[in-house]
Amino acid sequence: MDDLRRAFDPEVFRSTGHVFVDQLADYLAAALRGTTPVLPAISPGEIVRVWGSEFPEQATGGLQSLLQRVIESSNHLHHPRYIGHQVTAPLPMAALCDLAAALLNNGMAVFDMGPAATAMERSVVGWMARQLGFGPAADGVLTSGGSVGNLTALLAARQAKAGFDVWSEGAHAGPPLAVLASDQTHYCVQRAVQIMGWGAGGVVVVPSDAGYRMRTNALGDAFRRAQHAGRSVIGVVASAGSTATGAFDPLESIADFCRDNDLWLHVDGAHGASLVLSERHRGLLRGIERADSVVWDAHKMLLMPALVTGVLFRDGARSYQAFAQEATYLFAGEEPQERWFDIGARTLECTKKMLSFKIYAALQVYGTRLFGDYLARTIDLAQRFAARLREAPDFEIAVEPQCNILCFRHVPPGVADLDALQLQVRQRLLETEGFYLVQTRLRGKQFLRTTLINPFTSDADLEALMHEIRRLAASA
Amino acid sequence: MDDLRRAFDPEVFRSTGHVFVDQLADYLAAALRGTTPVLPAISPGEIVRVWGSEFPEQATGGLQSLLQRVIESSNHLHHPRYIGHQVTAPLPMAALCDLAAALLNNGMAVFDMGPAATAMERSVVGWMARQLGFGPAADGVLTSGGSVGNLTALLAARQAKAGFDVWSEGAHAGPPLAVLASDQTHYCVQRAVQIMGWGAGGVVVVPSDAGYRMRTNALGDAFRRAQHAGRSVIGVVASAGSTATGAFDPLESIADFCRDNDLWLHVDGAHGASLVLSERHRGLLRGIERADSVVWDAHKMLLMPALVTGVLFRDGARSYQAFAQEATYLFAGEEPQERWFDIGARTLECTKKMLSFKIYAALQVYGTRLFGDYLARTIDLAQRFAARLREAPDFEIAVEPQCNILCFRHVPPGVADLDALQLQVRQRLLETEGFYLVQTRLRGKQFLRTTLINPFTSDADLEALMHEIRRLAASA
Repeated sequence: MDDLRRAFDPEVFRSTGHVFVDQLADYLAAALRGTTPVLPAISPGEIVRVWGSEFPEQATGGLQSLLQRVIESSNHLHHPRYIGHQVTAPLPMAALCDLAAALLNNGMAVFDMGPAATAMERSVVGWMARQLGFGPAADGVLTSGGSVGNLTALLAARQAKAGFDVWSEGAHAGPPLAVLASDQTHYCVQRAVQIMGWGAGGVVVVPSDAGYRMRTNALGDAFRRAQHAGRSVIGVVASAGSTATGAFDPLESIADFCRDNDLWLHVDGAHGASLVLSERHRGLLRGIERADSVVWDAHKMLLMPALVTGVLFRDGARSYQAFAQEATYLFAGEEPQERWFDIGARTLECTKKMLSFKIYAALQVYGTRLFGDYLARTIDLAQRFAARLREAPDFEIAVEPQCNILCFRHVPPGVADLDALQLQVRQRLLETEGFYLVQTRLRGKQFLRTTLINPFTSDADLEALMHEIRRLAASA
Repeated sequence: MDDLRRAFDPEVFRSTGHVFVDQLADYLAAALRGTTPVLPAISPGEIVRVWGSEFPEQATGGLQSLLQRVIESSNHLHHPRYIGHQVTAPLPMAALCDLAAALLNNGMAVFDMGPAATAMERSVVGWMARQLGFGPAADGVLTSGGSVGNLTALLAARQAKAGFDVWSEGAHAGPPLAVLASDQTHYCVQRAVQIMGWGAGGVVVVPSDAGYRMRTNALGDAFRRAQHAGRSVIGVVASAGSTATGAFDPLESIADFCRDNDLWLHVDGAHGASLVLSERHRGLLRGIERADSVVWDAHKMLLMPALVTGVLFRDGARSYQAFAQEATYLFAGEEPQERWFDIGARTLECTKKMLSFKIYAALQVYGTRLFGDYLARTIDLAQRFAARLREAPDFEIAVEPQCNILCFRHVPPGVADLDALQLQVRQRLLETEGFYLVQTRLRGKQFLRTTLINPFTSDADLEALMHEIRRLAASA
């Protein structure tokens, strides 16, 4: 009991907390200045060996040094030369909100388990829905990430459009289902479909154009192919933007196609839905207000720590159809919509984290314009970088970037295997610890891929990247 | 840009962080002392109105007062008279680890995006597997909650036991599937099954005995009923313990049944798997080492902030079969097991939070015995409370508690509608703000339900609860 008392002692929490904050502030300062490695070069086998898996029976202490080790052995997303996957350098204040959320641990399945959390979630979801251009009937939830979010939206789509009660009767009560989606769709859509038991054929692929956008004039053909394969098509999944190149599918014409064929339109806006906040860029999302459901990750372009994703429904009633079910120890058995405040009835999670606080706080304290400015800044940077790469004779870009994702490759003269060169250069870049970027294959060619998601990456950083790539390629 | 610079300023983070820590330490002290309400009495409509949903365009500040409002309008799980749902009063140090996890935001889909996070997850998962009695072939992942965890395990079960490749070919390539589970199973199992498209009949219910444990001698009958309904049974889901009453299904005889019928044994140990850490109580879990998969929530009896759940597989290779898929921008296309360190291939999440740090830190810094002591303490308390209720002529318990969940009701003489009385008393208890407990229906009767999960709830608190219930009932 004494050990438990000590572990919960508020004064120990206070003093440890101050130390943690100082250690993390020091990390933040160093990373933003760029005086740390971006990603320490260490192999999986090595680090797993070092960290071990035996734990002592008795208290040993050592929390400060453990935190130091965790910081040192992490990928430093606040470093301006972190230009890798679409995971953001979060607002430090949002991390503090997560501290409060963690300590309060209000689980939110039912209203009682998180009154403030529930109220803030309603606020944030309402705000998101309005930004998308949805009307007052819209509703939605926050959930633990885009994969869960896309699954949640597709469950609602299944229930709305299958033509039979799949939830109660099961898949065998009707024909196999399918959605149409472009070849650039995030893998979690395919996963969601296969989780639901539709098999690999549950996504019927629509080809993309030279800009990696869905070829909407191929939708009819895909629709017929699906029907020919015995599939009942329930909807179309559009990407806004796609993962590999950040391409925005043309939502207006997809919405037309859905209207004409009575299909659900789901927009995976995990990365790009945030662009509604930028006057200059929201045109890319024209038509999103006609979507039946939209997924929007706040841990991408809203500068939030992972995971926090909005699932928004134009017709809020749809939000109650994904999971409707009884659990007597939780929900009181009334009509689901009368219990709008028991959000667990509408999320895959039962207990959930207090996901709303950090978004609510950032919008309230910093105001909404910060986000529009941030978005525009990263996209402008990507477009200037694309121009710079296009000018250079020894670089090529995969496609003109529509947002802040850019794929390019180094093409110095006299190299036989350019694909191998990209992989080699990327590997060596990582070994220098000076940049973190990733790789992807596009139409059979190997590219380097960057997401310019850190607010402080500069033109000079990207100039240095080109220089470094040339140096490493030349010495290969 | 200046706004962004200010928002990321390490010195602003430092000073704001210190203020946050102080505010939260004050909350913690007041809640542990019991000088706050447990749950403030406020209606959903009221709080949603007060919090609003308009956000300013420009920065307004006010973070401290916002935090104060969030604290005041939350359920105070650290209050010793929080005796409600199975969500724990987390270790304050674990909340600090979540602060670091949030700021570092290492997303972990691939090793690069979280080297330390990946190493610590391997450590924690390995430790969990050994505690369950699994051998060296075991493996698993951490995921965002028990609902996602149970779904993940059942996807692996589906792939292993359906007799056809459901993942690739879809549900229609074989007969409808089913699992057997008791009538006390958590609703998320039914949900997982209906997500997978098995319909409501995808769970074939096995009745429970007087102690709310699965009647294992009814398994054969349920199996035949399922077959008669044209279902191919792939496994049994056992509860350890159940949500409503904390009952532990007899795992040994369920494991025998699974062995004899070539079925997958999944144990939903969200609440109870932690009991392996208590010498005196791990007998309730005898047989868990024979399970094919186990779900174990650390945000229940491991004192962690939500969500963090282990999904453990006795045969670690099964862990690769739930979601195996290609995504060229993430996974390099080798054999999945050669990329054991890219954990996103085995979780529903792509990007995931750094879930491992808080568990790793607690085990490392406090040692493992703290948890066994805590568990034993809560169970002993529940058993003493049950004895006290049994002795009292005006109380009855639903069933002798096996762990720290207890259902009881107040049965004063001369009350016609005892069910209504329980609901009324619970409502009034909540209005006093002095206790938080919940309600459940068991076999047609209304009960009050407590989870004694706060480490500091005392016999005196529970004596006071009885007194308060009598007072409120008498004045009803």
